[in-house]
Amino acid sequence: MEEVENKQVILKGYVDILPNESDMEIKVSKIKLKAPKGSGAFLVKNLYLSCDPYMRGRMRKIQAANYLFLPFVPGQALEGFGVSKVIDSDNPDFKPGDLLSGFTGWEEYSLIHKTEQLRKIQAEDVPLSYHVGLLGMPGFTAYAGFFEICSPKKGEYVFVSAASGAVGQLVGQLAKLHGCYVVGSAGTNQKVDLLKNKLGFDEAFNYKEEPDLDAALKRYFSQGIDIYFDNVGGDMLDAALPNMRIHGRIAVCGAASQLGLSMPQGIHNLFNLISKSVKMEGFVQHNYLHLYPRFLEHVIGYYKQGKIVYIEDMHEGLESAPAAFVGLFSGKNVGKQVIRVASE
Amino acid sequence: MEEVENKQVILKGYVDILPNESDMEIKVSKIKLKAPKGSGAFLVKNLYLSCDPYMRGRMRKIQAANYLFLPFVPGQALEGFGVSKVIDSDNPDFKPGDLLSGFTGWEEYSLIHKTEQLRKIQAEDVPLSYHVGLLGMPGFTAYAGFFEICSPKKGEYVFVSAASGAVGQLVGQLAKLHGCYVVGSAGTNQKVDLLKNKLGFDEAFNYKEEPDLDAALKRYFSQGIDIYFDNVGGDMLDAALPNMRIHGRIAVCGAASQLGLSMPQGIHNLFNLISKSVKMEGFVQHNYLHLYPRFLEHVIGYYKQGKIVYIEDMHEGLESAPAAFVGLFSGKNVGKQVIRVASE
Repeated sequence: MEEVENKQVILKGYVDILPNESDMEIKVSKIKLKAPKGSGAFLVKNLYLSCDPYMRGRMRKIQAANYLFLPFVPGQALEGFGVSKVIDSDNPDFKPGDLLSGFTGWEEYSLIHKTEQLRKIQAEDVPLSYHVGLLGMPGFTAYAGFFEICSPKKGEYVFVSAASGAVGQLVGQLAKLHGCYVVGSAGTNQKVDLLKNKLGFDEAFNYKEEPDLDAALKRYFSQGIDIYFDNVGGDMLDAALPNMRIHGRIAVCGAASQLGLSMPQGIHNLFNLISKSVKMEGFVQHNYLHLYPRFLEHVIGYYKQGKIVYIEDMHEGLESAPAAFVGLFSGKNVGKQVIRVASE
Repeated sequence: MEEVENKQVILKGYVDILPNESDMEIKVSKIKLKAPKGSGAFLVKNLYLSCDPYMRGRMRKIQAANYLFLPFVPGQALEGFGVSKVIDSDNPDFKPGDLLSGFTGWEEYSLIHKTEQLRKIQAEDVPLSYHVGLLGMPGFTAYAGFFEICSPKKGEYVFVSAASGAVGQLVGQLAKLHGCYVVGSAGTNQKVDLLKNKLGFDEAFNYKEEPDLDAALKRYFSQGIDIYFDNVGGDMLDAALPNMRIHGRIAVCGAASQLGLSMPQGIHNLFNLISKSVKMEGFVQHNYLHLYPRFLEHVIGYYKQGKIVYIEDMHEGLESAPAAFVGLFSGKNVGKQVIRVASE
């Protein structure tokens, strides 16, 4: 069996705080496009790879206790969510031509042994790449966080930070479909424009142009905030706390503002949790996997009815992956960051 | 009708941060021991007055939004929870000899117009003063916070700060009765001794003798903490966060450590809420008043069976009230701080 070239994105060494492009390198190795007999494995061609902030955690040597994933291995290809097509298989459950969504390598071809976290993609009128975004982990994070943690009611006031990101854009649209008033924050005027004119947010603002975040929130939420979907932590969280309404809920989904700091900023306004009887809850989508089928049904339905859109930032070619990934941490991506490795 | 002397504790002026004894004064006024005809009011003799940390908030001119109570009025007597006996009444629902628990003045006699928040005390084998402690607001705070916010399960690991205080001592005992492992922190060795030898905590420690709170928590919770009942905020909260277990719950009940600061300390470890899927929820007992009858039944039952004890710090005479109240904020009280104004 002939070997072909297999381009890979390799982790060169562990990262301290934020990743740089120089922490990764493109390497070309060889691979047989064949699943070894008796291995139970199968060989896939990777079509789309997802750049997700959580991957930074796997680039660090020391992991937080209870973290879901092990660190990456320096010298080997990164791993992440992707969309792939089966080329050859020694596993009766996966046949050549099957399209899969789930964990794969940051490389052109991967030999897959672990099948637990893979889903077969059924033919639907949805772009394939959406299976790592709208219909993948970020979309499901939005769905589970909004409905399970925030318990939204029609007419409530909802604030979403990093609102044009992979998660935030769906939170805002789900909130609008649920009958809420929704305001988003983002870090460029282009993103603010998308929030207001493409994603249907009631209002949006560029937090980098607000000298006083508390004043900005009071401007958009004169009645206060019922639900804060927090993707950033830090100053925005501290500003949101005094603006929460009684029985408000804060879904703690991410702390994008804190990732570049060696020590997280202090949050000073937690006493508002008591006086307003506010619930603040962290979560990972993994806890809610039993809701995944319902999520897919709902969101695919909304998408087909034209009630939901999804903005992707699509980079072409595996070579673009390190820069695309690094760009996540300075907000360079506009929408969900995806790498197109190969055409379908 | 003859007038008698009525000793009162007067607020002299608004307080900035923490109250001092000099912010209050003892004044003697005159009162007729008679409820005016047609007033619907009734006159009570105050027997016990409760010193509660929340009262500090009413001594400040500027109130947090949504706070339950209005500020006190300088020049007038303080108000708070108390146990009183009706002496004369123009209200058919309240008769001389009735014993009441609820809001009254910090004075020997009070003319009561508002009856909504008063409860008649039924004759039970429970000390009268317990109606402002074990069976009053602090006890109910412990009950509602532990069962409604913390959703405890048998065998779980529970940490209580300010554990010998009015609320903490009942949280720990309820947790033990529920089959949990319970550790408390307090600020003197005398309190630690009470926690271990009188209140039945599994372990207790003096936080003032711990140079490293994280290490102290790891010593007592090698498996991590399922439930943290937080009465203090600040450094202890920051130390508890990384020690929480997956799906842990933090009931945010008070921030005793922060009351003397003009700006609350920053909390740095909130990212643990995400990685451990932890819920942190503030509450006030007022939200759960529908559970009060069940609470009374349960706790009176436990008390009569000898399964619960309650430690009071009883000061004698209204003159002792300012010092007793001020002492709350440096942890001088050992157990629930009560003032005995008159013998029953």
